[in-house]
Amino acid sequence: MRIVIIGSGSIGMLVTFYLTKKGHRISLLTNRQEQARVLNEKGIHLIIHDNERESVKVSADTFKDLQANGSIDLLILAVKSHQVKDVLAKLNQLHINIRAILFLQNGMAHTELLSTLEIPEVAVAVVEHGAIRENDFTVLHTGIGRLKWSYVCEGQGRIKDLLSKSTQLHFDISYDMQWINVLEQKLIVNACVNPLTGLLDIKNGELVKNDYCLSMMKMIFKEVMMILNFKQENDMWNHVKDVCLKTAENYSSMLLDLKYNRKTEIDSIIGYLVRRAKEQNQEVTILPFLLQGILAKETKVEGNVD
Amino acid sequence: MRIVIIGSGSIGMLVTFYLTKKGHRISLLTNRQEQARVLNEKGIHLIIHDNERESVKVSADTFKDLQANGSIDLLILAVKSHQVKDVLAKLNQLHINIRAILFLQNGMAHTELLSTLEIPEVAVAVVEHGAIRENDFTVLHTGIGRLKWSYVCEGQGRIKDLLSKSTQLHFDISYDMQWINVLEQKLIVNACVNPLTGLLDIKNGELVKNDYCLSMMKMIFKEVMMILNFKQENDMWNHVKDVCLKTAENYSSMLLDLKYNRKTEIDSIIGYLVRRAKEQNQEVTILPFLLQGILAKETKVEGNVD
Repeated sequence: MRIVIIGSGSIGMLVTFYLTKKGHRISLLTNRQEQARVLNEKGIHLIIHDNERESVKVSADTFKDLQANGSIDLLILAVKSHQVKDVLAKLNQLHINIRAILFLQNGMAHTELLSTLEIPEVAVAVVEHGAIRENDFTVLHTGIGRLKWSYVCEGQGRIKDLLSKSTQLHFDISYDMQWINVLEQKLIVNACVNPLTGLLDIKNGELVKNDYCLSMMKMIFKEVMMILNFKQENDMWNHVKDVCLKTAENYSSMLLDLKYNRKTEIDSIIGYLVRRAKEQNQEVTILPFLLQGILAKETKVEGNVD
Repeated sequence: MRIVIIGSGSIGMLVTFYLTKKGHRISLLTNRQEQARVLNEKGIHLIIHDNERESVKVSADTFKDLQANGSIDLLILAVKSHQVKDVLAKLNQLHINIRAILFLQNGMAHTELLSTLEIPEVAVAVVEHGAIRENDFTVLHTGIGRLKWSYVCEGQGRIKDLLSKSTQLHFDISYDMQWINVLEQKLIVNACVNPLTGLLDIKNGELVKNDYCLSMMKMIFKEVMMILNFKQENDMWNHVKDVCLKTAENYSSMLLDLKYNRKTEIDSIIGYLVRRAKEQNQEVTILPFLLQGILAKETKVEGNVD
């Protein structure tokens, strides 16, 4: 079975590492030639518990050198949400025959593309691991979580074959029947935690330690609940606060993206929710304000005061 | 006529400088003994147009050494808005007989105290000058504006006597019949510009140069207009944008207060508006969110990412 992972950031390297360790042969496609070269030379190194280092060999190539008219048995898409559309268009243009696809994106903007796919087997997953890309071949596994996945359409069951055999120490995999639930629950947490930590430049824990932050997060949460028509509000609120406490010392990916002048995932998280509210003719104010706040920080013309 | 100015920050020094230059004798009351000593020794130095320096002699003392049972013909209050209540309480406790009082605070929280005053002559002013306190005796006059004032109750006309004779080059003074208008117009500008620049860590000009910021400012503006039941919305919106352009290179006082870990004027600006909305049973969302955002930054437990 030809398994291809596109995207060699922290999540792409993490997943490639654990699947390779379990004995699967993976082709990892990178964006840059230099990273492909280094990965082929050194393999993927994973650092866990601050200092335990382990490595696996890997076969890497660049995405842009992908041959036309080929076929992929199982494609795992580990690129950023805003890159999904372009990657799918390129694969289509190259007439690659894809038999199964697994999406690993944050947020839900990529689900807006699901109806346009002509792939017989489709699944989505959320990665509840903390991972930081240290360099082109090293990933820090900073938080042991779980890969939670679900079928959108089951096709020939290739993804189930792969994932049901891949659970291992530090890399738990679980299946959920309802793909929308899987994505929405992660979306709610992301919507509450990521933009606000980015806007205020704070660690996740501050959201629950500081009453003003907690109150702002509650205002965001309320609008998200309304848009998703989510029923178990109290349980979910407790879960959101719990995530803040468990990741108290972490900086959210959105805060780090802003810090390093990278494009954030705001469109896939808050942008998606604002579009959904508009479709449903719901009036929301905090989410559009928050969306623009992050976009303003992303596109800031002038530097900070110093 | 015994004129006393309480508060020796940028505005207190600026006003003391220009009134002294016009020949009035002022007692300037400081918070710290050391600043009073330096002011008595060196006078107030004012720097304008980047390098022109001028100085006047001044008589300074500390507020806490104010003698009981004295009297003040005209008191100019140049302390921060959040200090007004304590200063008035202290003056009351000392049984100081105040014949006239002029308030120079930003925002409108101090107007909530007007009904408790037992002073026969009361006026409010807004200072449309840019001023930065460089050190204990030097103030930079960075923006030439105007002191706009209005009577709340006219009493014996002491304040009019003083201010009608004090207009001079770089220090224009104008009277307006409607004190609420004077304060509200400044409040609208402050509400639109200050918290948002503080939240996003940007110069004033970015608010109009960046479409996302402009859109956020418009959301704030809309809620402010509703609370104040302000009629000439288009004119006011153009005025707000105009202020951003004219002060494009400036950092707002709120941004600087956050930067230097000083208490901001958020309560006097957005806090006042939120209380007023509540009294009027109006539903607002952006202003409470913004209020909490600034309070969160003020009380931040953990440091920034770096």
